[in-house]
Amino acid sequence: MMRNLGASILGEPGAMQRRAMAKAITLLESTRADHRAQADALLTGLLPYSGKSLRLGISGVPGVGKSTFIEALGLMLIARGHRVAVLAVDPSSSVSGGSILGDKTRMEHLSMDERAYIRPSPSSGTLGGVAEKTREAMLVCEAAGYDIVIVETVGVGQSETAVAGMTDMYVLLQLPNAGDDLQAIKKGVMELADLVVINKADIDAAAATRAEAQIASSLRLLGLHHRPDHVAHDAQQWHAQVMQLSALKAAGLDRFWDLVMQFKALQQANGRFAAKRQQQALAWMWERIQAGLKHEFSEAPAVRAALNETTERVLTGRLAPSTAARELLATFFRGDQDHA
Amino acid sequence: MMRNLGASILGEPGAMQRRAMAKAITLLESTRADHRAQADALLTGLLPYSGKSLRLGISGVPGVGKSTFIEALGLMLIARGHRVAVLAVDPSSSVSGGSILGDKTRMEHLSMDERAYIRPSPSSGTLGGVAEKTREAMLVCEAAGYDIVIVETVGVGQSETAVAGMTDMYVLLQLPNAGDDLQAIKKGVMELADLVVINKADIDAAAATRAEAQIASSLRLLGLHHRPDHVAHDAQQWHAQVMQLSALKAAGLDRFWDLVMQFKALQQANGRFAAKRQQQALAWMWERIQAGLKHEFSEAPAVRAALNETTERVLTGRLAPSTAARELLATFFRGDQDHA
Repeated sequence: MMRNLGASILGEPGAMQRRAMAKAITLLESTRADHRAQADALLTGLLPYSGKSLRLGISGVPGVGKSTFIEALGLMLIARGHRVAVLAVDPSSSVSGGSILGDKTRMEHLSMDERAYIRPSPSSGTLGGVAEKTREAMLVCEAAGYDIVIVETVGVGQSETAVAGMTDMYVLLQLPNAGDDLQAIKKGVMELADLVVINKADIDAAAATRAEAQIASSLRLLGLHHRPDHVAHDAQQWHAQVMQLSALKAAGLDRFWDLVMQFKALQQANGRFAAKRQQQALAWMWERIQAGLKHEFSEAPAVRAALNETTERVLTGRLAPSTAARELLATFFRGDQDHA
Repeated sequence: MMRNLGASILGEPGAMQRRAMAKAITLLESTRADHRAQADALLTGLLPYSGKSLRLGISGVPGVGKSTFIEALGLMLIARGHRVAVLAVDPSSSVSGGSILGDKTRMEHLSMDERAYIRPSPSSGTLGGVAEKTREAMLVCEAAGYDIVIVETVGVGQSETAVAGMTDMYVLLQLPNAGDDLQAIKKGVMELADLVVINKADIDAAAATRAEAQIASSLRLLGLHHRPDHVAHDAQQWHAQVMQLSALKAAGLDRFWDLVMQFKALQQANGRFAAKRQQQALAWMWERIQAGLKHEFSEAPAVRAALNETTERVLTGRLAPSTAARELLATFFRGDQDHA
């Protein structure tokens, strides 16, 4: 079954490939141990065929027009001969039942096009778990020949960091509002951005221009923006840019894509493109190891038996937190015979 | 020996107590397993006598005048009858051999006073390890009756976050420079600050006043600063403040201490003082558990044997990072018989 799934994913585009992708991603999202083993075998088989896309992260607060932007961009890209996959990281979807992309009426035109593949956010578990499944789904899409993978997120928790950590380029959508950028600075999102896009510039051109100047100045103050006086030795390095567009009127998308292509060319020329992916892969591996260790620890019967009382002793000041940690670790490594 | 150490620490101030404190902290910093067990026993014995100090975190870039400030503040506080301990978290000290407080000529007057206890940063290991030893040293100082514990750090890595996570109040020292505050915002340090102090205000009063206005405005934009229109329902909550002083001329220290006392009174009245300590204790316990799990994992012979090759397969795109993590975790929990 795995072999068939893998073959269909690597095969011709069409209904059979789409069904195989959906099955594979569902398998990746399963929590059953036997499914997980099958999923790992499948992933390992697909991996040599993955990695050939441009991975684009897009975030922005609700109302900024992410869906409209992604739909307009996706339609432009498929018209140019690309195949576009859209995935999402939405850690709130486990509560809401899938707030991003769960609604089938979103991206109506793009979702009906055979050259696009849209998949809602996995809807279970922690941000780390949701992000892992999206990363894996990205590999499946790449193996199926999608050469542009867009990963979108709404700004919940640390989801922006997770998305920036799995994409080649991170785009922050902003409304033409003063003050908006300082919230982004506060949350550390501005520092992640390779490109800041002010959407809905058609509604109030003056506000959009003010916002652009303000964000450019914030990026400059944060040391992220291109400074005209830095020419020579920084020529090979990308500096965060800001631009305005109107996704609704599909105005400015050409220029957006030009900037994306400039970014990609520069990153490939200076070696950052491959280096960043390697860095991301290692960080991902260690993040999953840490999560796995914590899970095994928290679920171990000996730890579960001791944790409440130990926590209580820490909270009432009878046990130093570091001593408590050492006691629990000793319990885990000594006491949990299930793992031995 | 433990019992004697503990008794001397809990005993009368004087040379014997100081020697016992130094021995205890050295024991806490030891990496030998038998020392660690003794240290844990000692800590548990001292714990009921700890926790009664005000824990003050102070950070700022090199050159901002931290030593001068802490010495002036410390001398003022001991003159008022307090006993003052000064500890440090300096994750760079493992490289430099102790850049903070290692130099005996720093805080010359304060270090000669019997009512002050100054201890350089532990100089080994990761930030987490350095922070842990400082947290434990803090408990020893408290058990010895020091009622003000100052923990200083220079802005290296995440050391500010670590210090804010072990203190009741976090003070950020700034130079009267424009732009300085945006660096602090960028690093997320401004958000940690309960109080921002512009030092060296005597050098350029106009610059200091400009800096004060600028920082107040940044704090306001970040939603952290007290706004005059927020009176009624926020009266019980502390809002970050900014003030200027000159540590060198000991000018403004009274006002600084008044603000610290206002902060403490408010936090005690609204319950945040105790709640924050409980939160910190739990976070500390889990941070140590995570670090301990990662350490055991990385040191396990089976993992060490597999890690290089697995990493190589991830870096060359032959193994998905999540699959690699699962393989290594399986190796750890199955293969490492040493811990069974």
